[in-house]
Amino acid sequence: PLIVRSRPVNLNDTNVLLAMAATIAFAVTGVLAVAERRVDFFSAIMLGVIAAVGGGTVRDLILDVPIFWSLDLAYIRFAVLASILTFVAMSFFARPVMFSLMVYIDGLGAAMFGIGGAYKAYELGFAWPIGPLMMGVITAIGGGLIRDVLAGRKTLLMSDEVYAMPVVIGCLVMLLTLQFSPEHGPEGLLAGTVIAFSLRAVVIFWSLRLPRWFTTQSP
Amino acid sequence: PLIVRSRPVNLNDTNVLLAMAATIAFAVTGVLAVAERRVDFFSAIMLGVIAAVGGGTVRDLILDVPIFWSLDLAYIRFAVLASILTFVAMSFFARPVMFSLMVYIDGLGAAMFGIGGAYKAYELGFAWPIGPLMMGVITAIGGGLIRDVLAGRKTLLMSDEVYAMPVVIGCLVMLLTLQFSPEHGPEGLLAGTVIAFSLRAVVIFWSLRLPRWFTTQSP
Amino acid sequence: PLIVRSRPVNLNDTNVLLAMAATIAFAVTGVLAVAERRVDFFSAIMLGVIAAVGGGTVRDLILDVPIFWSLDLAYIRFAVLASILTFVAMSFFARPVMFSLMVYIDGLGAAMFGIGGAYKAYELGFAWPIGPLMMGVITAIGGGLIRDVLAGRKTLLMSDEVYAMPVVIGCLVMLLTLQFSPEHGPEGLLAGTVIAFSLRAVVIFWSLRLPRWFTTQSP
Repeated sequence: PLIVRSRPVNLNDTNVLLAMAATIAFAVTGVLAVAERRVDFFSAIMLGVIAAVGGGTVRDLILDVPIFWSLDLAYIRFAVLASILTFVAMSFFARPVMFSLMVYIDGLGAAMFGIGGAYKAYELGFAWPIGPLMMGVITAIGGGLIRDVLAGRKTLLMSDEVYAMPVVIGCLVMLLTLQFSPEHGPEGLLAGTVIAFSLRAVVIFWSLRLPRWFTTQSP
Repeated sequence: PLIVRSRPVNLNDTNVLLAMAATIAFAVTGVLAVAERRVDFFSAIMLGVIAAVGGGTVRDLILDVPIFWSLDLAYIRFAVLASILTFVAMSFFARPVMFSLMVYIDGLGAAMFGIGGAYKAYELGFAWPIGPLMMGVITAIGGGLIRDVLAGRKTLLMSDEVYAMPVVIGCLVMLLTLQFSPEHGPEGLLAGTVIAFSLRAVVIFWSLRLPRWFTTQSP
Repeated sequence: PLIVRSRPVNLNDTNVLLAMAATIAFAVTGVLAVAERRVDFFSAIMLGVIAAVGGGTVRDLILDVPIFWSLDLAYIRFAVLASILTFVAMSFFARPVMFSLMVYIDGLGAAMFGIGGAYKAYELGFAWPIGPLMMGVITAIGGGLIRDVLAGRKTLLMSDEVYAMPVVIGCLVMLLTLQFSPEHGPEGLLAGTVIAFSLRAVVIFWSLRLPRWFTTQSP
């Protein structure tokens, strides 16, 4: 595949703050999601960290590259700190305004992780073009899926939350840009991230749900 | 271990059609299995694809070889197309006669994937003789297990469906052939596949269940 | 990181018996844990083996080294034999005195697997110092988590059983020793194992549970 020489958006020095914000948001929403089930301190931290880095871990296993957090421990450190803070200050993070903020940042995280994951697969020439799309989705939702399975919650895939679709559309925009206009790679990354997050923000703001004809009926 | 020079049965050019049929059947039964739970379009496709390629993915991770579908995207393409088709034409695939047909093709898929997975581990010299047997079982049932876990369904391991046993017996036949008569490798592969599928077909046709003494009793 | 030249405790010739005892205990408690759910012979064996070797398998995937049981089949052999034996002699292993014994040996297994897993990551220079701690925990509890997910049981992370905490503390003791006094590596390994097991034994003996302030409250 065509290789863009620029670095992916979410790894730029100028964007490292955003990547960390996304990691933190994943950890915070990860802990909040299991809080109602009475988990202990240790399990809460583990589930928060898994929510934050689980998707990228599965992606890197499939890509057969070193796990991203083993090369830069900041991801784990921020995930652990955010999980501890969420556990300790549960009532603060569970406040409607903080919770809403976290849901939006979580959406931004999903957008950035998804686009970043798809781009990583693209750079490695992995199974173009389906591979990068799959890796984007796995990076964005994999951690949440593992957390929900371990916590015994209904997973995202079985809820009517519109969560993965914005990531899919954002990744498609980026991958089409890389395919047909590789010199605009950085713009494609940015556009994909903005579109994925905007769609998710719209879904959150208006509490949109999927239409009925979009779900299976009892046959 | 002794290495047979022929290619595995399920990768022969003449058998590629059967491998694709198996992939399609896994995807179709994968989507049908979760249909009653009201999943949306996107989740249905994901669960169908996971059912179709999940087992081989876990096998390749453990064998530390490139994931099979990243080398030949036809597997993913057929799985996606079959999943979409099943979602759209749910009432068609849910018809008794179509569903029965799919259950048999799914059994053929489990047989072929199981034997193919065991043979791949054998060719790589992986942990003979237990390794190939384990990899065969993982290839055959791994995708269904992951799908069920993500969908919140009781997994195969906890049902009284006789599903994995035919694969185990078929793999044993093949592995014994490779061990004691390696020059008959191709025949061993064929025999293993035929036996695994035949046993499964018998189980399906007569709705056989495991005897009570074969399951745990409350102690 | 600093590398200790000695072999890890759980791989010493003199300790191989203990490692096998731990594998057996994991398999036995693995099968007993699912027995009440009426699983068949084949599923019981699979779940027992997964409980015994699943954690180390995930660790080795993340570390990107050959899966430990593929290099020494004794682990799988003992796990299979112990699982079969437990299935056949269920009433024997379910006796209070045998069950108690197994719970203690399982705690010893968690201690040894945890310390061994952390040490393996340390030797490979993996993501010091958080990486070895995470790999220790994954080795100790990963198999049980996968078993519980496949069996549809509430996982360890959602129970109030104090199981992982002793492993964490033991690993911390070992890793601090390796960091500040690497010439005492072997003693650190031994101390970590003894401390992890002793804490777990205390928890089992007095049926300790976590204090309420240590678990999440409904916000």
